This record gives sequence, structure tokens and C-alpha cells, in this order.
Amino acid sequence: MSLDAVLARIDDQIPAATDRLIELLRIPSISTDPAYKAQCAAAADWLVADLQSLGIKAEKRETPGHPMVVGHVAGDGDGPHVLFYGHYDVQPVDPLELWDNDPFDPQIEDTPAGKVIRGRGSSDDKGQLMTFVEACRAYRDVNGSLPCSITFFFEGEEESGSPSLVPFMQENAEDLRADLALICDTGLFQSRTPAIVTMLRGMVTEELCLQGPDVDLHSGFFGGLAMNPIRALSSILADIHDDQGRVTIPGFYDGIPELSDEVRAQWDGLEFDWQGFLGSVGLGVPAGESDRTPLEMIWSRPTAEINGIWGGYTGEGFKTVLPAKANAKISFRLVEGQDPDRIRAAFRAFVQERVPQDCSVEFKAHGGSAASVMETSDPTFEAARQALSDEWPDEAAYVGCGGSIPIAGHFRSILGMNAMLIGFGKDDDAIHSPNEKYDLESFHKGTRSWARILDALCK
Amino acid sequence: MSLDAVLARIDDQIPAATDRLIELLRIPSISTDPAYKAQCAAAADWLVADLQSLGIKAEKRETPGHPMVVGHVAGDGDGPHVLFYGHYDVQPVDPLELWDNDPFDPQIEDTPAGKVIRGRGSSDDKGQLMTFVEACRAYRDVNGSLPCSITFFFEGEEESGSPSLVPFMQENAEDLRADLALICDTGLFQSRTPAIVTMLRGMVTEELCLQGPDVDLHSGFFGGLAMNPIRALSSILADIHDDQGRVTIPGFYDGIPELSDEVRAQWDGLEFDWQGFLGSVGLGVPAGESDRTPLEMIWSRPTAEINGIWGGYTGEGFKTVLPAKANAKISFRLVEGQDPDRIRAAFRAFVQERVPQDCSVEFKAHGGSAASVMETSDPTFEAARQALSDEWPDEAAYVGCGGSIPIAGHFRSILGMNAMLIGFGKDDDAIHSPNEKYDLESFHKGTRSWARILDALCK
Repeated sequence: MSLDAVLARIDDQIPAATDRLIELLRIPSISTDPAYKAQCAAAADWLVADLQSLGIKAEKRETPGHPMVVGHVAGDGDGPHVLFYGHYDVQPVDPLELWDNDPFDPQIEDTPAGKVIRGRGSSDDKGQLMTFVEACRAYRDVNGSLPCSITFFFEGEEESGSPSLVPFMQENAEDLRADLALICDTGLFQSRTPAIVTMLRGMVTEELCLQGPDVDLHSGFFGGLAMNPIRALSSILADIHDDQGRVTIPGFYDGIPELSDEVRAQWDGLEFDWQGFLGSVGLGVPAGESDRTPLEMIWSRPTAEINGIWGGYTGEGFKTVLPAKANAKISFRLVEGQDPDRIRAAFRAFVQERVPQDCSVEFKAHGGSAASVMETSDPTFEAARQALSDEWPDEAAYVGCGGSIPIAGHFRSILGMNAMLIGFGKDDDAIHSPNEKYDLESFHKGTRSWARILDALCK
Repeated sequence: MSLDAVLARIDDQIPAATDRLIELLRIPSISTDPAYKAQCAAAADWLVADLQSLGIKAEKRETPGHPMVVGHVAGDGDGPHVLFYGHYDVQPVDPLELWDNDPFDPQIEDTPAGKVIRGRGSSDDKGQLMTFVEACRAYRDVNGSLPCSITFFFEGEEESGSPSLVPFMQENAEDLRADLALICDTGLFQSRTPAIVTMLRGMVTEELCLQGPDVDLHSGFFGGLAMNPIRALSSILADIHDDQGRVTIPGFYDGIPELSDEVRAQWDGLEFDWQGFLGSVGLGVPAGESDRTPLEMIWSRPTAEINGIWGGYTGEGFKTVLPAKANAKISFRLVEGQDPDRIRAAFRAFVQERVPQDCSVEFKAHGGSAASVMETSDPTFEAARQALSDEWPDEAAYVGCGGSIPIAGHFRSILGMNAMLIGFGKDDDAIHSPNEKYDLESFHKGTRSWARILDALCK
């Protein structure tokens, strides 16, 4: 069996593979909107049929929400048994008027940077998911079978908080367990360098409501004498960061390990263009801890962000109200060493200490998950990194990811598996936004990358 | 002509007067919301018709905003020519779900303290405005004419910053000028003591928008590196007050006179029950400058209040957005010695100094007016104070008012008239709040009070 033949088959079949992806993209599988329930099921059915066409024993598995797709196939060699995860659901498409084409009538477009497929889900995550499926198809076309045992696991609720995921994994642990999980839902580093994500931040989300007077007051009659809860809330929120960008909540940084010299050197070698990254959104000054590098700020250091604030009169014109309540939504991105429950408790204590005598506070927990750090000492990581480096102009890198991809943690905690996150998205793919696209280069070289990785893992 | 007969006529006609007030309250004349333009005009039409039914030459006068109502009637005696001012517009009604009845379907309710009319505008200012109109109606019913020449002047933009008021007064100065202005838009002192307001705070209102990134960002990818404008806004707002309740804006207190010994002694004699005042709205701790008395905090000292704040995701659930913008509405209550333009400029400079390098700020001015201090040496003040004392159980007092009634200053500066502010609202009327009400006792004794005052002024 020759890897070169598989890669040649992929090159040959790209037009057909693109047509298949477009078929899948035509199904509006918006998971957060109940109106699209049947379309989510239709996307799952399409995937089941496509896997079955590859000789994979696949089926749609019902959940209280949208269905899972699970498929199994035995491989030839004595390589590791891998599980591949992706999600077939997509984000809503509003505001629709900002799209250049119907988000569910995908178009191939020529751009200065090459051809792209424009449509909802092209990059997040249908296009990425299909890179692995197409790599398997080519492998089978050339060799008649796959190089190792593979479990396929596709979710339909990733864009709506994955409510069914953990119960499903717990109930089907034996069916899903493998030696290694492969996840294709991330991107190239700086749109250029192939990357394996080895570090994911966790998250704690909180909502708080500060109550002052029983009712909204007239700021003329009470102003100057009565406590204004917006004033109190502003003061509490302003206290969360010091003037060096550090979070001041006691114990917030406790237990966080410093980067190893090896990782620090590797990250320095990435030459992160933070000026370009910030400049692309109209900014220019790193706003985090002043003694940390920009990459640390987004990958290995925790954050406190105010995601929403509201209180008093917010409509047109002016209303001289002294409001009864002021509210905020706050999230903390967590890193290794931080326990979500401990951080939530520390934040609540920090707020309680600052609530003025004439105010009371109520908290609402929205969710929490710990950070994940992958075990890169596993030799499969170096094998995959080398395979990626063989495909792309730049050598592949181990990188962090500031976002939270809880599935990686679930593979570890529920199934005891290490997870490898490899993806081919670009920074300008506009995922979750109008005019989402996926470069045909990402699709093509992504498919070739998985063929190389499967080959390397089974050697 | 007998005052007793007029008072008896008022007592007799209270049910019919209440029905007329309810008709006026049914018109949702919310001036700050352009959607209610026609309803504001309808309220003006209703008043024109009601004045005409009293033989008053009244008409609706258009402005670039909502119309004015102006009416003239010649009187019998050689008393002063008075101008009576009130406003027919009302505050918005949100949050609607906190109302016990439709705010524009007023209900008469029995309460432990007596009957009340519950509905938006009942106390501020339609119910108060109608006390004077009903006093005139009874006077005319009994005597066939009014005791002095009266100009009626009703505004429809008081709750939205009165943009048309000054130009209208300037253009119609000859038509409006009289010997004395009477204004009914204030309250009893401590819900019990009839009062003439001799000191009014002014106001400056500002809206600001702090912009950070060009677009909303994903707090996973950018959080920790990109400036969050809500964080910057909280920090700026928190800086406005020090821990002694003082406003820290440079020059804010410049030029403010201390109270005279006479006024201080009179205010001490009022025995203001600030614990009861704050306690009625669930509070207990004076929040103003720690070295000032509670009456100073609401009458003779300036304030800075945040009236509204918003930014990021404020809906159900959670969205980990790092928002592009954060906004606030802020007002300053001004006292004698503070110039609105100077205070606005000082605030803007204060904010500009604190805007982080990666943010920009835009200001929007909503309005401004200086504080007013009345000339109580005018003998009409003592005559009116005595008339009020005759009607109510307690002797009438000269008091301050923390609210801003810019019209009093305009009467002085544009028309050269002294203004007398007398009203019958109670502290628990919930003006600007859900469940606004006006006591029937206020409506009834208020009407009788004006009859007595007109009688006293014309003797």
C-alpha cells in the first residue's frame, strides 16, 4: 500500500469530494433553532449514508436533542484504534442581508487568495469533518480497506451547548472508547502553519444582579442620598483588574504552572504577529497582564471578561432614573491548575466583599469546564506533527487555543482517551458570521494531511 | 365673591373633576418616544378644549417637537397677572410587567392611606396641572369670572429635556409675560407639610459610547489580549466618586456657596426624617458626601448619577462575546454657582483622560440647565405661604427641591418673572416608576389650595 497512491487519488477526486461537501452544506442544520430539527436529522442521515457507502457500519443514534452519528470499521494493520469527532450542526445565519449568497446555496468563488467554498458550515465544521471522511474514502479506494480501526462520532448540538453529549458518552462509553481521539474543529496557526492544539482554556460563566432600592427612583429627589446600584456595580467591576492588567481576585492565579522552557522557546519560535492579529480588528495594545507575551495572554493565562452589562434606562432619549438594579454577565477563561468551582467561589466572595451596605447581590451560574492540556509525550503526537509538516510548506507547530472545546476534556474524563486537535480553518473564515467560507486549499490539503497522519500512526 | 363658596363648589365637584383627570390620563403622551407623537398632540387638544369650556381663549401652538398649549383670560380685580405652568407629557412606562394595572387605564384604588388614582402621569404632572384648572373652574362657576388675569402655559416636552421650550418662550415673550409664574410640579414636604420650593437643582445630561474593537470579538480567541470596552467604561465610571461620596471631577464643586445661617436653621427645623425617606425604598445609608446632611445631599449639593448602562450580550443565556461598544447615560444635578457648560466640559475632559489607548469615546449631549434660587422677599410668597397654611394641618414651609425644573429659571431669564413652585405630590407617588399614583386628597386639597392662593394674591 502506497501513501503516494492515496494522495494521488485524493488529488484526482477533489471535484467529486467538493460536490459531496456542497450536498452536505445545502442542509440547513441549525441546531439552536427548534424550527430546524428535521434538517438536523437530515444532515445526520446524509452522513450515515455516506459512511455506509465506505463500508462503514454507521447509524443515527437518537438523543433528547439532535441525533448523534456513530460508525465503526475494522482496519488492516495493528495501528491504534482511533476515534474521529466532528459536528454536523451549524450556527444561525442572521443577519442574512450581509451574506453575498444564500448561506445554504454554497458557491465556489475565486478570490485573490485562491478558490473558496462560501456557505454556512463550510469551515465550522462540515468542511473540516469531510476532510477526514474523504481521506478514508481515498485510502479505501486505493487499498480496499482502512489502515486501522476507526470509530466515527459526529455530533449535532455543538453550536447549542452540547446538552446531550456528556450523557451520551457516559451511556455509550464502551461503544466509543478507542486509543486516541482525533478532532477536526480548529485552524492553521496564522492561516499558514499547520498546528496541533495541545492546550485549551476552560471557562466559568456567571451572571450577577445588584439590587439597590426596592424600585426605580427619581434621580432628582433621591440622587445624592440613595445608593445607585450601577455606581456600585461599576466600582466592583473596575476592581477586577489592576492597572497592570492582572486579575485581582484573591487566589485567582494559584496553582497555575509556568510554561516549560521548551514550550516557551517553541512559542517564541512561532513569531506570532500580534500586531497584525489585533490590527485586523482595529486594536493595537495588548490588554492583558503587562509581564506576559501576547501568546500567553490568549493561550496559557486566564482571563476575566465582562460579556454584558445593563441597568437603568437604555432606550432613546434620556430618563433621569436612579435604577433599582444593575446586571452583568462575566466569564473567566481558565488554564491548567484552575478549578472552575474554586474560581466561581472566589469571584463570588470578591463581589460580596464589595457590595455596599445598601445593596444586595444575586448570582446565577451559567456553566463551567476546566482547561485541557494534552499529553504530547505520547509518540503519536510527534508522528502526526511530522506527517503535517510533510504536507505543508511550514513545519507543524504545537499551539494553544484560547477558546473552550469541552469535548477534548470529555474524551479524557469519560473515556480516558488522549485527544489530538488538528484543523485547517483560516483566521478569515468568518465562522459564526455572515459569508463563512472554507478555502479549497484547506479542504484539499486537509484531506491529504489526514491521509498522511493515518499512514504515520499505523506505521 | 366668597372663598367659602368656591371651596364648597370644589368639594361638590370632585367626582366630576376626577373623571376629567382620568380622561386626560388615558392619553399616553410619552414625549421621549417618537412613536407617541400623535398621542402627545391628542393630550394638547384635550387641554385646549377643556380650557375653552372655561371661557378661556386657548390654542395649540406647534413647535418643532410636541405642541404647547397657551390660553388667556382676563380677570375682574386688580390683582397680579399670573401665568400658570404645567406639563402634559409623561415618562415611559417600562418595565410594564411591574404595573398592577395598564398605566394608561387609570384606576381608583382604596389604600390604607386613602383613595388614590393609579396611572402614568397621575402625579407627574397631569393630576397636579388639573388642580389649578379645577380651582379656576370652581371660581368661575361661583363668580362668573376669575379674580385676576391668567395665562395658561402647558408644555409637552418636560420629560424629554424641553428642546422647544426656550425658543418658544423667546419667540412668544410678549404673549407669555405676566407678573408672577405659578408652577405646579412639586410635592408636599415629607408627604405632609405644604411647601413652596425656593431652590431647584439644575441638570446636565450626557450619553457616552466607548468603542474598543471594530467588531464584536470571540472572547476565547481574543480574550486577555484585546481591550474590552465594558472594562474600560466600568473603570471610568468607578472613578467619578471617591470613597467619601465626593465627585472627583476637577473643578466640580468650584463656586458653590455655603448655606446661609438662616436657611440652615430653617432646614434643621424641618426635622427631615431621612431614615424614613430612605427606608421607604428599602435603603438606610446616605450615599452622598459624608460631611453633608441628608437635606443638603438632595437640595443644595450637586450629584453625578449613572442613569443607564449597556453593552455586550444582555439577553437570556450566555454569549461569550467581547463587545465592540459599551454605553452609559449620566446626569449631573447642579446647584447655585455651577455652570452647565463648564460641568459638561469638565466631565468630558475627565473621561477623555481615562480612555485607554485602544478605545475611543463619543459624547452626546442631551440637555443642560442651571440651578434656580427664588426671591422669597417678594410679598406674594408670604401671602401664598399663609394661604397654604390655612388649608393644611401643618404650617407651610420654604423648601429646596433636588429635581430640575428648568422652567423656573427660564421665567426669570427670558421673561423677567419670579416663579413660585407649589405642588401636592407625595414621596410615595412613584413618579417615573411603575405604579405611579396621586392621592385623591392631594387632588382635592390641592385644588382648594389654589383657590385660596388666587384669593390671597388678589386681595
